[in-house]
Amino acid sequence: MDIQEEALILHKKKKGKISLKSKVKCSNDHDLAVAYTPGVAEPCREIAKEKDKVYTYTAKGNWVAIVTDGTRVLGLGDIGPEAALPVMEGKAVLFKTFGNVDAFPICLATKDVEEIVKAVKLIAPVFGAINLEDVENPKCFQVEKRLKEELDIPVFHDDQHGTAVVALAGLVNSLKLVGKSKENIKVVINGCGSAGIGIARLWLSEGIRNIVLCDSKGVISRDRTDLNEYKKAVAEASNPNNEKGSLSDVVKGADVLLGASGPNLFTKELISSMASNAIVFALANPVPEIVPSEAKAAGARVVATGRSDFPNQANNVLAFPGILRGTLDSRAREINQQMMIAAAYAIANLVSQEELKDDYILPKPFDKRVRKEVTRAVIKAAKKTGVAGKRI
Amino acid sequence: MDIQEEALILHKKKKGKISLKSKVKCSNDHDLAVAYTPGVAEPCREIAKEKDKVYTYTAKGNWVAIVTDGTRVLGLGDIGPEAALPVMEGKAVLFKTFGNVDAFPICLATKDVEEIVKAVKLIAPVFGAINLEDVENPKCFQVEKRLKEELDIPVFHDDQHGTAVVALAGLVNSLKLVGKSKENIKVVINGCGSAGIGIARLWLSEGIRNIVLCDSKGVISRDRTDLNEYKKAVAEASNPNNEKGSLSDVVKGADVLLGASGPNLFTKELISSMASNAIVFALANPVPEIVPSEAKAAGARVVATGRSDFPNQANNVLAFPGILRGTLDSRAREINQQMMIAAAYAIANLVSQEELKDDYILPKPFDKRVRKEVTRAVIKAAKKTGVAGKRI
Repeated sequence: MDIQEEALILHKKKKGKISLKSKVKCSNDHDLAVAYTPGVAEPCREIAKEKDKVYTYTAKGNWVAIVTDGTRVLGLGDIGPEAALPVMEGKAVLFKTFGNVDAFPICLATKDVEEIVKAVKLIAPVFGAINLEDVENPKCFQVEKRLKEELDIPVFHDDQHGTAVVALAGLVNSLKLVGKSKENIKVVINGCGSAGIGIARLWLSEGIRNIVLCDSKGVISRDRTDLNEYKKAVAEASNPNNEKGSLSDVVKGADVLLGASGPNLFTKELISSMASNAIVFALANPVPEIVPSEAKAAGARVVATGRSDFPNQANNVLAFPGILRGTLDSRAREINQQMMIAAAYAIANLVSQEELKDDYILPKPFDKRVRKEVTRAVIKAAKKTGVAGKRI
Repeated sequence: MDIQEEALILHKKKKGKISLKSKVKCSNDHDLAVAYTPGVAEPCREIAKEKDKVYTYTAKGNWVAIVTDGTRVLGLGDIGPEAALPVMEGKAVLFKTFGNVDAFPICLATKDVEEIVKAVKLIAPVFGAINLEDVENPKCFQVEKRLKEELDIPVFHDDQHGTAVVALAGLVNSLKLVGKSKENIKVVINGCGSAGIGIARLWLSEGIRNIVLCDSKGVISRDRTDLNEYKKAVAEASNPNNEKGSLSDVVKGADVLLGASGPNLFTKELISSMASNAIVFALANPVPEIVPSEAKAAGARVVATGRSDFPNQANNVLAFPGILRGTLDSRAREINQQMMIAAAYAIANLVSQEELKDDYILPKPFDKRVRKEVTRAVIKAAKKTGVAGKRI
């Protein structure tokens, strides 16, 4: 039986993947009186007096809304809120399993930015954070910006931030292997959607100066007149030599090539034009831009993909559960670049000097140390940057 | 330690009362591939092809949104969405414990009817039913009407419907005790909020012809010019002799007096003016309109309250878990009067002829037969009235 068939059977048999768990027992009148009326009136009164106590007496501080409009689900595209639900339930399962974060799928019956923002603001009282998921580009940036401005809880967008963190962890360890430093490398990112832009933003803020992005029309340069505001902003911040042309023009001599684009877009010729000790992250999923064997045959030294059946899987589950766990535990009011960079180094550092090799640059998702170390690093960075709340 | 203090300690220690439960394990790459990518794409595709399959492959069909704007929470009034959360979490615990229904609190940051309706419609894709809770009157009727018209999932309003069902169950058994028939009794309902109006609507549809309602200004008659549209509608349908005056005027000679009003509003004199074998339901909570000992001293034969420390507790938990369970299991597109009446008789019939006495007219909430029998009755009525969906 193949995975597809097995998935259908599992989803049908279980009738979905998530249910509610009561944290309190309710087996006699006394239990009822404490968990419900009349006892429950007391925490209500306390919160009515001081709204912030909602974090003390309710589960708000551990619940994350997984918000989507279903417009860019996996590689399936715009399939709508109902068809997006299996993915969002799956995400909730990962949040719970890998971070003990309680997450609830909010699949919205709208594609309109104003309505998405409005809906999330209206339901925000019961959530400790928002995780945006699978919203199409560039709408995802608009929604993220608006929510960050208008909500008093942190907003995470895994397609940007989670991917950027895991890729940075992989890069940090790859650079150790090849003996290059982040300040001196040239990075080419192919793909200018949420992942590409998210990676560029985070890596730039970590001091990787020479990053050049490409979209399907070629290099993102400051001379392009067809860029949306998000690509325009990244064009301003990246591409220090204002290079122009096609992907193959800028990849020549590059140290790192990262694909956040589509299947089979990297040729052997492209890889062989790179500098020696080339690092290739082909993150398109499930079919990468190039398979590791071909990239290696063309001269790449370190190759990572999104797939679990190849070495060096760059899996977001390494990042988002611990990042949200640390954010909730520190009651951080935002998730800033420093917190994400700290998460990336925490992940990278879980691969010891002895373990580190071309085919082992990232820890495995099931390594229980990952969540713990990412959480710890995120809390520390939240405190250091002054965004931690009073819970700690 | 009193209940209030104990409630505060419990809520703080547990950090709220609800968390997420994953229904699937996720302990290796294979599990991940089936519950998440790439396997999860398959149920997504199936639902994209046929939206209704969201009930087959996701948990939608077992999730209920507990929707409130926090404007009429317990006896605490308009305390806002955050302070309402302990009650909504408590409701979710009861749904889970007594009906295996997964319910999630949606406490909305708005008091506006349009915004409440809009928010619920936007998040509806992930829910199998809506349970309105603690929305102030008459807004609750407006919201309920709009949602019923505009959503394709059933809408329940426990403050109206749950209360009406349990009270009807109590009435049915009380009438057996006193040997009167529903067609010939006179019922006075004091309180014209969601509970009072909900009870009047359900009881009228069950053939109790002579019902007179009162609000704080006196009898609801067709001559009153100060009634909102909901009171006006109930005035048209009730009070067959178009009686006028005050509560004490219409209670004279009445067989049943039901309070859905406020503490200590019924005097001994009021009760003693009723017909012989008087039935008094004093449902104001936590302080009833009159305590059972006083009502009995004034001549009442059967007295029920909302409290667990008096006999004959009319507790909504007898009704709503089984009603929603049956509604979800039958995939009913609405919860109609026949389904609620069937639920009331299922509850009443759990008190056997031998058990039935003045101080025992309703089964206990912890009686496990309650959910089963209510569920069965609701499913049967849903099928009979043609509102059951294709799941059964």
